[in-house]
Amino acid sequence: MKLNDLPMTTSATWTLARRAERMNPSVIREILKVTERPGIISFAGGLPSPKTFPVDAFAEACAKVLREDGRSALQYAASEGYGPLREAVAAQLPWNVDPAQVLITTGSQQGLDLVAKVLIDTDSRILVETPTYLGALQAFTPMEPKVVSVASDAEGVDVADLERKAPGARFLYVLPNFQNPTGRTMSEARRAALSIAAARLGLPLIEDNPYGDLWFDAPPAAPLTARNPEGSIYLGSFSKVLAPGLRLGYLVAPAAILPKLLQAKQAADLHSPSFNQRMVAEVLKDGFLDRHVPTIRALYKAQRDAMLAALRREMAGLDVQWNTPDGGMFLWARLPAGMNAVDLLPEAVDRGVAFVPGAAFYADEPDARALRLSFVTASEEQIATGIAALAAAIREAQGA
Amino acid sequence: MKLNDLPMTTSATWTLARRAERMNPSVIREILKVTERPGIISFAGGLPSPKTFPVDAFAEACAKVLREDGRSALQYAASEGYGPLREAVAAQLPWNVDPAQVLITTGSQQGLDLVAKVLIDTDSRILVETPTYLGALQAFTPMEPKVVSVASDAEGVDVADLERKAPGARFLYVLPNFQNPTGRTMSEARRAALSIAAARLGLPLIEDNPYGDLWFDAPPAAPLTARNPEGSIYLGSFSKVLAPGLRLGYLVAPAAILPKLLQAKQAADLHSPSFNQRMVAEVLKDGFLDRHVPTIRALYKAQRDAMLAALRREMAGLDVQWNTPDGGMFLWARLPAGMNAVDLLPEAVDRGVAFVPGAAFYADEPDARALRLSFVTASEEQIATGIAALAAAIREAQGA
Repeated sequence: MKLNDLPMTTSATWTLARRAERMNPSVIREILKVTERPGIISFAGGLPSPKTFPVDAFAEACAKVLREDGRSALQYAASEGYGPLREAVAAQLPWNVDPAQVLITTGSQQGLDLVAKVLIDTDSRILVETPTYLGALQAFTPMEPKVVSVASDAEGVDVADLERKAPGARFLYVLPNFQNPTGRTMSEARRAALSIAAARLGLPLIEDNPYGDLWFDAPPAAPLTARNPEGSIYLGSFSKVLAPGLRLGYLVAPAAILPKLLQAKQAADLHSPSFNQRMVAEVLKDGFLDRHVPTIRALYKAQRDAMLAALRREMAGLDVQWNTPDGGMFLWARLPAGMNAVDLLPEAVDRGVAFVPGAAFYADEPDARALRLSFVTASEEQIATGIAALAAAIREAQGA
Repeated sequence: MKLNDLPMTTSATWTLARRAERMNPSVIREILKVTERPGIISFAGGLPSPKTFPVDAFAEACAKVLREDGRSALQYAASEGYGPLREAVAAQLPWNVDPAQVLITTGSQQGLDLVAKVLIDTDSRILVETPTYLGALQAFTPMEPKVVSVASDAEGVDVADLERKAPGARFLYVLPNFQNPTGRTMSEARRAALSIAAARLGLPLIEDNPYGDLWFDAPPAAPLTARNPEGSIYLGSFSKVLAPGLRLGYLVAPAAILPKLLQAKQAADLHSPSFNQRMVAEVLKDGFLDRHVPTIRALYKAQRDAMLAALRREMAGLDVQWNTPDGGMFLWARLPAGMNAVDLLPEAVDRGVAFVPGAAFYADEPDARALRLSFVTASEEQIATGIAALAAAIREAQGA
């Protein structure tokens, strides 16, 4: 039954907050809408391969949680998170972490939102890599910071440039392992130099590590946070090692900051879903990740190799460059001089393949020739077909 | 394996955002910690009775979703929410709502966070009831508004006071049905007058309705939003009619505002858990709420009656006042002149009973004599024992 006979009044005068003017639809999400057309081979998304989701383990865990502890799992719960899950997180991290330092978040995206609320005032300077994770820019922007890009190379942040730009900055946001978007990994030497420089400068680090477990041949070097836990906030996620649809991540923060992050969390959504937290705590028992994650690594490594092989085969004679990521989900490529990835995209989509122009990932001056290619969502056959189509689009654009 | 041989550097200089200074631990959550001691009868929490959680229906829905659609349910999803759930929400609301206006949120607490981000600048004036929902104050505070209380009586907001205070305000936040904390309900006459005044003033309304379905004898009057959908944002929740542990709520917003709320949502946590959204959409099929919600109403009405009977019996001769809520979870009481609910609390806890001092719910001048009593978490027997203990504490404090 719908109400039709109420005296209807007129509208109201909505005044948007200034920060709302800065909010814009995610370029990637807008592109993804186009690329969801049937038949498009997409290297654009950041979606883990659904083949890797442990559906049966979740089904067992759901049934068990609801059978044994259903009413608690469905009730309101502590903002900090479910105790056994916080303990499991602390235990799996490679430095000494007290479970009391762990805050469970609604995906690691929420961790970025909480960091922004607690550490950014209007016009605060914050530092990011070049390029950097778009979702972090989106989380930071509503708090109206001045975002400054630190020069970066294939090993990550340039420490000399960091030293020039650090004075007065609230923090450096850094994603050292198999970075989104570039796939690059920070070397041990660079981590050591960055860590020492940051400590000398008194510069807090926000270390984001959603992909660190997805290494192919050898694990990456130790986290920056392990070198200076009091000077760092560490963000992690279950989205890439279990599944993103549960929206569970976590952060580890020093005692100086955690209470404020917790209060921001409470105000944001009271707590992350208690049911999901118990499900994941149940799945994690008995070393599940030790058996499960190697299967993801093997799959993603094979898909990376398929993309590298296709690139070598199809891009021959074109002046296209790309890197060889040691893990994760993304590869970073660069078009020939004079070309523009944004202009290329519609041509590529016409030929049935999609990617994300790299320009989306820069806080300031974008590299118009860069593009991000995900190698984990499409199958090996689709990778071969899609890279061939991309090469054809580049060839045609070059000839034009 | 833990890292012990890294060169450890020193800490960093953390600078908190100004808004973080305003964040404080929830008074209620701090009290709840004390009252979680075994043996304490708590009228303090805002927890639904776990007896009402449809555990079996959830178990069936979980199994079905994972069996039939597991990989989609576990994947990243649209920020707007799961289509069939948005349609179910639109269909159950008592005015014409396009599913495209519905945004699924991580509990209705997140709806408040998004409203704050999109509509509040530093020092923006916003209007609230006297008293008002503490969680809303916590969600609004980080955006640094000037919060102004509008005088309110047993029927809700005083329209004449609203007219005086409205000029320049960004919105009025109002919880018309079985309000948290007072349990009061806005009459039809007051809704009509408020709606007309708000439209004339151009004042947007944020209408929060987590308890509206929990009526005892007759449903409350039509929502304010139904009278002016273009001038209102409506917040709803599955926490009280299904279970809070899934953290699912929703908002309905006009086209003028929804895109910004959606962008804020995307930045906050990408999307609410897709798995939970499919579970709830599955449970809602075939009119489940039409069968389930009446059982909650009957239980809560019996518990309200038990508390009213205990109050009449135990408070005889004491100058304590209380209201008779027509639904929801809370009753509002007032101590004799000269008494203070904050001072009474430790005495009551010593006697094994807890409540929330009303002072927590005021944006400015608190009523020191008020207290909030939840009648839904404790059993009828516990209600009888707890109210007797509360009366004894009051009697002793009065004699002192």
